[in-house]
Amino acid sequence: MKKIINKSKDVVTQLLDGVAFAQEERLERVAKTGIILRRQIEPGKVAVISGGGTGHEPAHSGYVGENFLAASINGPVFTPPPPEMIVKAIEKADQGAGVFLVIKNFEADVANFLAAEALAIEQGIEVKHVIVNDDCSIEKANFKKRRRGVAGTVLVHKIVSGAAAKGVGLTELVELAEQVVRSLNTLGVALAPGTLPGTKTSQFELAESEISFGIGIHGEVGYREEPLESSEKLANELVNKLKTQYHLQSGSQLAILINGLGSTPFMELAIFANDVRRLLELEGVEIRFKKVGNFMTSLNMAGVSLTFLELQESCWLDYLNLPTDAYAW
Amino acid sequence: MKKIINKSKDVVTQLLDGVAFAQEERLERVAKTGIILRRQIEPGKVAVISGGGTGHEPAHSGYVGENFLAASINGPVFTPPPPEMIVKAIEKADQGAGVFLVIKNFEADVANFLAAEALAIEQGIEVKHVIVNDDCSIEKANFKKRRRGVAGTVLVHKIVSGAAAKGVGLTELVELAEQVVRSLNTLGVALAPGTLPGTKTSQFELAESEISFGIGIHGEVGYREEPLESSEKLANELVNKLKTQYHLQSGSQLAILINGLGSTPFMELAIFANDVRRLLELEGVEIRFKKVGNFMTSLNMAGVSLTFLELQESCWLDYLNLPTDAYAW
Repeated sequence: MKKIINKSKDVVTQLLDGVAFAQEERLERVAKTGIILRRQIEPGKVAVISGGGTGHEPAHSGYVGENFLAASINGPVFTPPPPEMIVKAIEKADQGAGVFLVIKNFEADVANFLAAEALAIEQGIEVKHVIVNDDCSIEKANFKKRRRGVAGTVLVHKIVSGAAAKGVGLTELVELAEQVVRSLNTLGVALAPGTLPGTKTSQFELAESEISFGIGIHGEVGYREEPLESSEKLANELVNKLKTQYHLQSGSQLAILINGLGSTPFMELAIFANDVRRLLELEGVEIRFKKVGNFMTSLNMAGVSLTFLELQESCWLDYLNLPTDAYAW
Repeated sequence: MKKIINKSKDVVTQLLDGVAFAQEERLERVAKTGIILRRQIEPGKVAVISGGGTGHEPAHSGYVGENFLAASINGPVFTPPPPEMIVKAIEKADQGAGVFLVIKNFEADVANFLAAEALAIEQGIEVKHVIVNDDCSIEKANFKKRRRGVAGTVLVHKIVSGAAAKGVGLTELVELAEQVVRSLNTLGVALAPGTLPGTKTSQFELAESEISFGIGIHGEVGYREEPLESSEKLANELVNKLKTQYHLQSGSQLAILINGLGSTPFMELAIFANDVRRLLELEGVEIRFKKVGNFMTSLNMAGVSLTFLELQESCWLDYLNLPTDAYAW
């Protein structure tokens, strides 16, 4: 698989240097780290930070900006950053009102971020967190059952950061974030696997004519493979599975995120969005907020994920709509 | 090639409905046309509009917004809209100060847009245009020699629209636009061809290990094929070819656009951007403005294009930096 990279060992450093260059007026890379930091962080407010492995661009640096994350911490490809680096980001981001961590529910991510939280608290910094587990793919009985943190995490970033920018304190942010996570579900479908830099190995095997429902953002196996028939059928499968997580009725209010997984052209995302819209209109559901684009990818995987967030409080929508200069929004 | 579409005859309609849905607060689709129109167009200013075939998403609808285009006109895949539709867009966009057309240099595009201009002038609307021809790929002697309009067109949109928003009149816009076009060059490289919706036909043939320099946004043949070695080598080839179009020296000021061609992950665009930055730093060239992302694609083609704009006037940078709500900026 051809990739526009240099040595595969340099992928992360050069990616972050590229991001820092492209956004130099707004963001900086903390030297020799995977930390991308806002040049201006509002004083006196809780700083919200997030991160994880790279390979999910524009996550997470694309969400660092005004009314959004104060910093992202970026590890090796598909591997979370070490606790010491997360602690450094906490120190850099803290403006005296504490730091809130948005963590995706993967074992290594949770371990490293919670270890960092404990270390930072020892240093006297107030830190709290939420663990996002929006992936509702139905796993086979013999898989370890867990809900992973995937693209819906981006909506958690936006709402929690918006609340923090409006002066909401650390304890209330935990409550807000947990309520958002409980209302959040994502389901993805892959048309083709991605390949890791410097390898010829695909993330998983998939027949040329088939698609895989329920794949994870690191290529975790899905719940069903079948031929691709149409965007409408895809939308129907994902909407129906997501609906089982809610008691939607006429007048229910949703925010939705339609997320390309890495190599899917915008044309296809827009067509899929149109099919999702039509299905939700049939249900009488109100789509109060929507985003269509590449938000949390998996290298060059082809496919799309669909996220529903049922809007429980009107302030969630206000926070989603706050303006930002973050480059992936 | 699997695509998230329904019937291929419905691709354009469903794409535009998807765009109108995703951006419904800001944009509307004029019923039964390929016109995407701003809901709020500032009165008393020249309206700048552009368009062409679809398949280049987020072009051109992604550039419709505040301080940017008033409308985009979208034809069938890789086929410009008919003159009547362009006339309709001119009528809808005109706020009494005339309409400026940004046309890409393809025979059919130029013919249809100029026919529309003539028809609108007959109706009493003031219309002027610029033809963008930024593609500086070196074509073989037996090809029809011409410079095509490609990704750099987006910078022309932004500068001309910014000037129009600041009250610059139609005649002065022609002068400005022509000066920008003379300072604008783009060169692309494909890693893999795209495929047309509903077909299994690739845009061109390319060996699995090879890349093609100088390809066009419809898959027009490039000037050289060779194996992909590294991002640095790619950057070196493109930067050197682009440099031949300028007399760059230490202190020269550039705006640059690094554009994914459809299925290239952001990770690779950022790494490539970093290599371009390093090469230009060696020359002492100042990069005063840069954008990295998918701006003008070719369906699911893999690859990247690089655009240089030598900044001749400080107001060009001001116009590039004007805020906008256009979704692809």
